Amino acid sequence: MRTKTPQYAERILEAASRLFASRSFHEVRMEDVAGEATVSKGTLYRYFHDKDELYVALLKRASGQITHLMTERVASQTTAREQLVALMEAVVAYFDEQPHLFQLIVRAEPQRELGKFPWQEARDVGHRLVFEIMTEGTRKGELDIPEPHDAAMMLFGGIRAHIGYGRKPRPQGFVRGLVLDFLDGYDRRNRRGI
Amino acid sequence: MRTKTPQYAERILEAASRLFASRSFHEVRMEDVAGEATVSKGTLYRYFHDKDELYVALLKRASGQITHLMTERVASQTTAREQLVALMEAVVAYFDEQPHLFQLIVRAEPQRELGKFPWQEARDVGHRLVFEIMTEGTRKGELDIPEPHDAAMMLFGGIRAHIGYGRKPRPQGFVRGLVLDFLDGYDRRNRRGI
Repeated sequence: MRTKTPQYAERILEAASRLFASRSFHEVRMEDVAGEATVSKGTLYRYFHDKDELYVALLKRASGQITHLMTERVASQTTAREQLVALMEAVVAYFDEQPHLFQLIVRAEPQRELGKFPWQEARDVGHRLVFEIMTEGTRKGELDIPEPHDAAMMLFGGIRAHIGYGRKPRPQGFVRGLVLDFLDGYDRRNRRGI
Repeated sequence: MRTKTPQYAERILEAASRLFASRSFHEVRMEDVAGEATVSKGTLYRYFHDKDELYVALLKRASGQITHLMTERVASQTTAREQLVALMEAVVAYFDEQPHLFQLIVRAEPQRELGKFPWQEARDVGHRLVFEIMTEGTRKGELDIPEPHDAAMMLFGGIRAHIGYGRKPRPQGFVRGLVLDFLDGYDRRNRRGI
């Protein structure tokens, strides 16, 4: 039996990603993926037993990529506010470049209660980063967020809704506006001259 | 062939609801539902062909109930802020009473892109109510929310995250706090003496 190589797996995942991007999940067949990746069906099945295994692998890969991206973007900023903006802008841009990704996550989400959710790392790391920015920002006096865990859930939940169902194309500076309104209040009456 | 009656359908849905509440989706069998409802399997299958049809019917029923509840609770309040608080408190309380409901919605959500999402009415009416409260509140000068559509998505998205994954039991006044922080800003530094 031939061994598996990461290059082949990557090539198959790239091909599958292109197909999921261009048609709905049910319309993508394993033989289409083999064709798009220019590998034999035998090779494809050696790497991925079925379409579920394939899209779960895609989500795990994407989860790793966005985890890296979020961490990097946060490190590139120095203030808590700019870190929150940069993180959320990176997340939304990542999804906007791959509009099929959100639907794949929605498809995988019922597995979450069974502890088998391939997007879990991205969720956990994203939540932890936002929690830490809020906690550290509050400690330094840049922010005052008494319940950063609850606030992080509100912020990510709201951004998730916009990723999946918000208007597109998004206006310039849109995500920045969402994050700053979240911090400063969606009701502008209550702002202190900002 | 015997006719179907709403009473029987209701009895079966109540029984199914109790079972989904006490075990995971995969563990509920059609014959368990028949047993819990004390109807024959023949009767059960006359009403619902399979478990998917059953949980979709449950979600449609719940969607109708929460739509009614939201509308009623909004009508019972006079200020925009109290309407938003009352609406979100009612939604969270409804889910907290039926902790299995969120998972059933998550299970149905992949159908949304196919236009067959049994929770759609609740989403649409909830969003419209929040949009109207924000628009009308802004018109009257009770609020100042320039983009009520975007704000409604943020608010519902955040509340959804807390419904599904927030800490429980929720502290007294928790949902009120989430809504007011949303309006006045999660960063308390920027509040005008409130």
